Amino acid sequence: MEGIAYLDGVFMPIENAKVSIEDRGFQFSDGVYEVIKTYDGIPFACDAHLDRLERSLRLLDLPLPGNRRELEGLIDEAIRRTGLQDAVVYIQITRGHAPRKHDFPDNVKPTMVLTVRRARPMPEKLYEDGVSVIITRDERWLRCDIKSICLLPNVLAKEKANRAGAFEAILVRDDGRVTEGTTCNVFIVKSGKLHTAPEGNWILSGVTRAVVLRLARREGMTIVEDFFSPQVLMSADEVFITNTSIEVMPVVTVDGQPIGNGIPGEVTRHLAKLFKEEVPLHKQQAGS
Amino acid sequence: MEGIAYLDGVFMPIENAKVSIEDRGFQFSDGVYEVIKTYDGIPFACDAHLDRLERSLRLLDLPLPGNRRELEGLIDEAIRRTGLQDAVVYIQITRGHAPRKHDFPDNVKPTMVLTVRRARPMPEKLYEDGVSVIITRDERWLRCDIKSICLLPNVLAKEKANRAGAFEAILVRDDGRVTEGTTCNVFIVKSGKLHTAPEGNWILSGVTRAVVLRLARREGMTIVEDFFSPQVLMSADEVFITNTSIEVMPVVTVDGQPIGNGIPGEVTRHLAKLFKEEVPLHKQQAGS
Repeated sequence: MEGIAYLDGVFMPIENAKVSIEDRGFQFSDGVYEVIKTYDGIPFACDAHLDRLERSLRLLDLPLPGNRRELEGLIDEAIRRTGLQDAVVYIQITRGHAPRKHDFPDNVKPTMVLTVRRARPMPEKLYEDGVSVIITRDERWLRCDIKSICLLPNVLAKEKANRAGAFEAILVRDDGRVTEGTTCNVFIVKSGKLHTAPEGNWILSGVTRAVVLRLARREGMTIVEDFFSPQVLMSADEVFITNTSIEVMPVVTVDGQPIGNGIPGEVTRHLAKLFKEEVPLHKQQAGS
Repeated sequence: MEGIAYLDGVFMPIENAKVSIEDRGFQFSDGVYEVIKTYDGIPFACDAHLDRLERSLRLLDLPLPGNRRELEGLIDEAIRRTGLQDAVVYIQITRGHAPRKHDFPDNVKPTMVLTVRRARPMPEKLYEDGVSVIITRDERWLRCDIKSICLLPNVLAKEKANRAGAFEAILVRDDGRVTEGTTCNVFIVKSGKLHTAPEGNWILSGVTRAVVLRLARREGMTIVEDFFSPQVLMSADEVFITNTSIEVMPVVTVDGQPIGNGIPGEVTRHLAKLFKEEVPLHKQQAGS
């Protein structure tokens, strides 16, 4: 089976899963989501993802339907039903459906959707050669720390990257701060230090970002969690981007300009290797 | 009948209208909408709403399903089927459904939803007494001129107003510019001049806003389309807000502070009266 959906307490084929046109997710982007990757059938960093989900829900004053243990059980069951090893678990929770009105409705039951799909593996060549990115304006709302489905600005910027033949768009606020990509966090290596934008309302605190920072710290690297400008980005020795699906991806050109030698950097490749080594460790933990 | 929905070419009860959980409206807020009010069964300022809808679609690189004349026919038919005189027509168009991925999908058919519901009339007392508003941070994205369903920040600010016992929340950018309300445009009267934020990417260009500006111009009023600060707002002689549903609504307190004498102002009441007089004129035009 290629995928499965869970909606309103029932497992079903994804194409059968439908929500009301008055679901607040559909009319108001009033909801949050998480994407979790599985390796050999086991969700990676599930705790970190569910912690972030609970935080996003809290900030929208939305309850977690059921409880955390039930959700964990549901994720495991959905993965098991698909029989997939390398899968993407998608969880979306909205405020539920009610006649259209901005105000939070009374006595509404949140909508919870969960899907599990086969992961689309990234071509190995991308990791070997690195990818191109463009820089574009960060037009998103001011609470990017909430993993909400209010993603239209991300979609528009990502499409701009596609049309420019680039892998991703790196977002820059009008005051010149590089924040993150449309679907990823951004790191640079400069004079041996690892720089990335700090947690706060301008970026989503990535689960992969946190793993990479932990690994870099373990390696004794100096880490600077501060904003940098596009100029600093362009003149970096190395650039890479991270998220749940791409893990650690080297960036070799920004707006057509090569970064460093124009090939994936040494630090990037080392951190990507260390990240790969986390996966079996994680499985041992989950299995223990 | 209290309301009707149109979806995928079929009229149905609103509660039967459902979309895929992979509709991009549900997962990415990748869509736009319009709200049109009818008076005596005739949609008010329909051309202006559909012009704006077409503009929003264009900015998202989305096609209008069918053509404009078909959409007009559909709106008329939906209103007729409900038999409602004072109704709210809601139109939402999304990029359609496709397996989840930020990038615009290939060969996808946009989703068009249309509903017609009985209008909830505003209590007359609100117009007589005026309403209270709060001021809160404008956390929305930077393309508020696009009438997108990316409305989570609006929802959160509106809920904040509700919890403060206020009718609306007026949004202020971090640099001190009052932009608009979560669902309305904001006007002030100061030293005989009418001020409102200018068109551009910081506000939605309201259809009611345009009618009010036209009426004020006809009355010979001086109009200043420029941003003002919360301080200027608080010290205004009169404040009012406008949208399709509330038309022209006087504001008598901001963050608990009375505006002017704390009662609806003279200019506000005059413009509200002129707006009311537009409705029969509009019906004559539509009928001609």
